[in-house]
Amino acid sequence: MRIIRLHVDHGLAEGAGFDLGRQQAHYLLHVLRLGAGDAVHLFNGRDGEWRGVIAAAGRSTASVTPRERVREQSAGPDLWLAFAPVKRARIDLIAEKATELGAAAIIPVVTENTAVSRVNMDRLRANTIEAAEQCGRLTVPDIRQSASLAALLAEWPVGRRLMVCDETGGGEPVIEVLQRMKEKSGSDSWGILTGPEGGFSPSELDLLAENPIVTRIGLGPRILRADTAIMAALVCWQAVLGDWADG
Amino acid sequence: MRIIRLHVDHGLAEGAGFDLGRQQAHYLLHVLRLGAGDAVHLFNGRDGEWRGVIAAAGRSTASVTPRERVREQSAGPDLWLAFAPVKRARIDLIAEKATELGAAAIIPVVTENTAVSRVNMDRLRANTIEAAEQCGRLTVPDIRQSASLAALLAEWPVGRRLMVCDETGGGEPVIEVLQRMKEKSGSDSWGILTGPEGGFSPSELDLLAENPIVTRIGLGPRILRADTAIMAALVCWQAVLGDWADG
Repeated sequence: MRIIRLHVDHGLAEGAGFDLGRQQAHYLLHVLRLGAGDAVHLFNGRDGEWRGVIAAAGRSTASVTPRERVREQSAGPDLWLAFAPVKRARIDLIAEKATELGAAAIIPVVTENTAVSRVNMDRLRANTIEAAEQCGRLTVPDIRQSASLAALLAEWPVGRRLMVCDETGGGEPVIEVLQRMKEKSGSDSWGILTGPEGGFSPSELDLLAENPIVTRIGLGPRILRADTAIMAALVCWQAVLGDWADG
Repeated sequence: MRIIRLHVDHGLAEGAGFDLGRQQAHYLLHVLRLGAGDAVHLFNGRDGEWRGVIAAAGRSTASVTPRERVREQSAGPDLWLAFAPVKRARIDLIAEKATELGAAAIIPVVTENTAVSRVNMDRLRANTIEAAEQCGRLTVPDIRQSASLAALLAEWPVGRRLMVCDETGGGEPVIEVLQRMKEKSGSDSWGILTGPEGGFSPSELDLLAENPIVTRIGLGPRILRADTAIMAALVCWQAVLGDWADG
């Protein structure tokens, strides 16, 4: 039987029961048709993963009690995703895949050619929580307020490298870049940046080119959709530098 | 301005005009609002890519004339994708991503835990054509009739290796497998196989384990959705052994 995992905000400790919000109660009682006494796993991004139980269930309320910690909290790879927003259905997909692929933070970036002006941050966060519950993560990606490209670069932490997906064909093959970085064994802190469907503007490309933290990568000869490029960059990073390589 | 690319079945030669089908005519005339004299690129998987022109346009008919070959035909990487079907929306996504990520053939595989009994092959093919038009491929993935896992393995070509995504955690990290294969410089013919949401059955795992063409790969500690695992395996293969590595 599939383990039901719920992300909660509440602190988790043995025997310290609490009420769930209405949405989660509805999900357990009416979507999954669980009831008092049924098992549920709980995590909050701080206290590890707990096996718990539905302690009480009303018509639209439920409380849960953590019983036993089954996994210690761990941080996961330190990889940020900064992306120029695309259409809503594609953002849902990006949120899901970035979570499964282990992004620690997600930052919408407004570029000159970004056609989408507003990102629904609540929806973005809800999608990452759902994906985190399903894929077994102990954390949910940190959703950051959207920033302009200039602001993103201005506030970018010293020592965190940035891999930029280059649609102009000027980037070095991604695997070569990552293998070289692995051999150097430099920073473990990384970000990935992808542009909008229309690509970065010439002045944005200049801004990126002159920044020493930036490495431009190429993702092959075919034109990838923005969401595909994001997944591809996340996958390559995890496979070479991230926790897929730990075996 | 974006180049409009159309996949056609008709042979392509300079000046040899032909009528488009009703759907493609509708797309050009009423969706894109093009008309006689407008440029369109044409490819058929055999004759390369041609710059052409809409020669005549009626209310729901259009004819095109190839003018100049702009790219020679090339085959692309020899990578097959065999996958256990999932829900329809996810199959649409798999078709799109497999095409962008350069799969040469797509084969639905019926396994013991496959919950989806029927794949709409016309829809699968339509999605690959649309993705091929958008991503700049000169070919469309070959869509094969679905087969049982036993039949797939029985008819699998000698010399074509098979990378199996292993959800049981027993697979070697994907990057290590691919790097080793690259150094050996063995076969260029490969396939990727992914299982259903419920995983392969014990007898299927035995069948795969005893087959010398099979290499099991691991895709990290998180539980990936079937469509994510497919994309991840395709990406890693292209990055190390495929045409992303050519730079």
